Amino acid sequence: MGVVVMKFGGTSLADPERIRAAARRVLRMKRAGNTVAVVVSAMGDSTDELVALAGRVCVDPPKRELDQLLATGEQVTVSLMAMALEDLGAPAISFTAGQIGMVTDDAHTKARIKTIDVRRIREQLDAGRIVIVAGFQGVTREGAVTTLGRGGSNVTLVAVAAALRADVCENLTDVDGIYTADPRIVPGARKIARIGYDEMLELASLGAGVLHNRAVEFAKKYRVPIHVRSSMNERKGTLITDEPEAMEKVVVAGAALKDKLARVIVKGVPDQPGVAAKVFHAIGAARIVVDDIMQIIGDDGRAVIAFGIEQADLGDARRIMARLGRELGCEATFADDLAKVSVVGSGMRVHSGVAERMFEALAKARINIENISTSEIKISCLIDRRLGRKALRVVHDAFELGGKKR
Amino acid sequence: MGVVVMKFGGTSLADPERIRAAARRVLRMKRAGNTVAVVVSAMGDSTDELVALAGRVCVDPPKRELDQLLATGEQVTVSLMAMALEDLGAPAISFTAGQIGMVTDDAHTKARIKTIDVRRIREQLDAGRIVIVAGFQGVTREGAVTTLGRGGSNVTLVAVAAALRADVCENLTDVDGIYTADPRIVPGARKIARIGYDEMLELASLGAGVLHNRAVEFAKKYRVPIHVRSSMNERKGTLITDEPEAMEKVVVAGAALKDKLARVIVKGVPDQPGVAAKVFHAIGAARIVVDDIMQIIGDDGRAVIAFGIEQADLGDARRIMARLGRELGCEATFADDLAKVSVVGSGMRVHSGVAERMFEALAKARINIENISTSEIKISCLIDRRLGRKALRVVHDAFELGGKKR
Repeated sequence: MGVVVMKFGGTSLADPERIRAAARRVLRMKRAGNTVAVVVSAMGDSTDELVALAGRVCVDPPKRELDQLLATGEQVTVSLMAMALEDLGAPAISFTAGQIGMVTDDAHTKARIKTIDVRRIREQLDAGRIVIVAGFQGVTREGAVTTLGRGGSNVTLVAVAAALRADVCENLTDVDGIYTADPRIVPGARKIARIGYDEMLELASLGAGVLHNRAVEFAKKYRVPIHVRSSMNERKGTLITDEPEAMEKVVVAGAALKDKLARVIVKGVPDQPGVAAKVFHAIGAARIVVDDIMQIIGDDGRAVIAFGIEQADLGDARRIMARLGRELGCEATFADDLAKVSVVGSGMRVHSGVAERMFEALAKARINIENISTSEIKISCLIDRRLGRKALRVVHDAFELGGKKR
Repeated sequence: MGVVVMKFGGTSLADPERIRAAARRVLRMKRAGNTVAVVVSAMGDSTDELVALAGRVCVDPPKRELDQLLATGEQVTVSLMAMALEDLGAPAISFTAGQIGMVTDDAHTKARIKTIDVRRIREQLDAGRIVIVAGFQGVTREGAVTTLGRGGSNVTLVAVAAALRADVCENLTDVDGIYTADPRIVPGARKIARIGYDEMLELASLGAGVLHNRAVEFAKKYRVPIHVRSSMNERKGTLITDEPEAMEKVVVAGAALKDKLARVIVKGVPDQPGVAAKVFHAIGAARIVVDDIMQIIGDDGRAVIAFGIEQADLGDARRIMARLGRELGCEATFADDLAKVSVVGSGMRVHSGVAERMFEALAKARINIENISTSEIKISCLIDRRLGRKALRVVHDAFELGGKKR
């Protein structure tokens, strides 16, 4: 018994029948003696449909108006969820972000939560009602509607759970939890029972989906444990929480594959202050996200700069580098067809030999490593994309992530 | 040049193309030098679709939640309209009821407007923007979303126009204006250039559609003239306004036909205080709307009570009267297949002979009159429904509403 905040994603609310199923699940949680708040996403693909509708009215919709439009998606589901609960005999009340003072900055379409006034939620919970809160949306101090960007409903979940000091924060979704690797690629992948915030952040940014980084960062900041589990069954999922004590740390928690990467290698860069900045300013201005930047000074006193980009940005990067090449007297080459295989685990901080084991496994499988990048808790290898899925299986196997070898 | 409030109904906003057409019309009004606010309904049938969706989730949706749901329909159109205007290069901003303090009582699904805080609208108008206001919705002092019931968007139109002291208040709809009779029945019907509030109220309640009575009552109260016109062309429509001076009053402004009526005749009612009240209490409890109540005391000291109902309520009325009949010792008979033909005109107040002319015309056409009811500005005759359309044409002709006879 305690305060529970449950969140249902769009797939779990895609039609009236699923909304009623979600309501029954909420009700079971309530009847078990808990105080329950619920955060909901918009129904199925309705957010995408609203974006498409805006596109048919306006080439480049003003962001304030886009937010005003998109927020209706969650306003629909909060009211339907409250109705479904009332229909089951459970007193319930729905709230939009404006109605509970979920105040954000005014960065429309990617707003950040500043404060929540939980008094109204508490009042209703104290009166025995189940409170339904619209995910993904906020409101500025002036009353304009904002949205929180991709993964925004999960940010709402964590924010509500933090503000209510919830005992349990459940993210009910269409997957069972976080796996040691993508089960569609690695059949032996195992569901992770418990994972640290930092590990989850690395896994998510390295290609493992489910939770958007912003929600995890927010959960880490407010130390809210998130239970990611399926809305379709009652099985336990994955608990994302503080890292376990050093003694019991798992060396490697999971492995991930990020596909469709490209790499830009710029040779003959004058080794002068400001040149690298010029390159990354031009790339950044085109909204191209880069990672794994390396710079080496060659014998000729000129530098080689290499960095990774998404393959989709390759065309833009080529144009920019052609222009910069003339200006700076350097030359860029491009490698597409790359993938990145990574292992993540907070135990790496205190265990050695992880990198060696990974490289050895890839070598044994005759997978060439094009580039390596590391952090305290992850090791990533850039490899030929055609070998990406094989590499993930090899690495997963090498660290016995599916369980001890039989 | 002045302050103009324009309202577009759902048919005029049913798809992106029509929304863009409406936006172009708004922009022409703005470019003509006017300060322009716009009130919008939900797109096409979207309100009905939301009601149906609620019905698939909940047998009897709580009204607060139904309002929370339905209000999304207008939130979609305000943002789309603002986007369409921005796309045309016109600065625009959308507001929900909550965002402009359109405060109502808490009678969900049929709330009444209490106050509007027009400061925010004025600020934006003063900044040169076109302001788009969500019709049909309001917000309680506690922040719950309400809706204004049938015809609610027109109530919003009048409320905004009154609060802004608008010079022009345009109701842009899918008809050309108010006609002397339904043109689908009376081919010679003429568009009325100008009609008084009271006449419009009578015509609307007697079967002429277009504007709901609440909006007209509201307009009368605040003396806001409403120009009802087509959203499809630039022709003048009908101006609903204060009555013209007595001298120039039209005797009969229009004729209307109300179809599918029934009549309940209760005989042998004990002539005691409270008996009629018992009958109408039972009828009212079943949400049956009655009109044209008549009571006559017979020679036996018992009363005959007759009243009109919608034909759709006949089944309910039969059941109620069967029960009451046993209790009170009276007997009810029922006439369905009735229609009511009416003429309306504020000139009746000062002209005589109107009733005579109407009865004569019906008699000449061999249409029997079952019952007559009158007010200061209307005369209604209950007739056989099969003769309803003919009666409307006969009456329309008798008062030369289509113009002088050739």
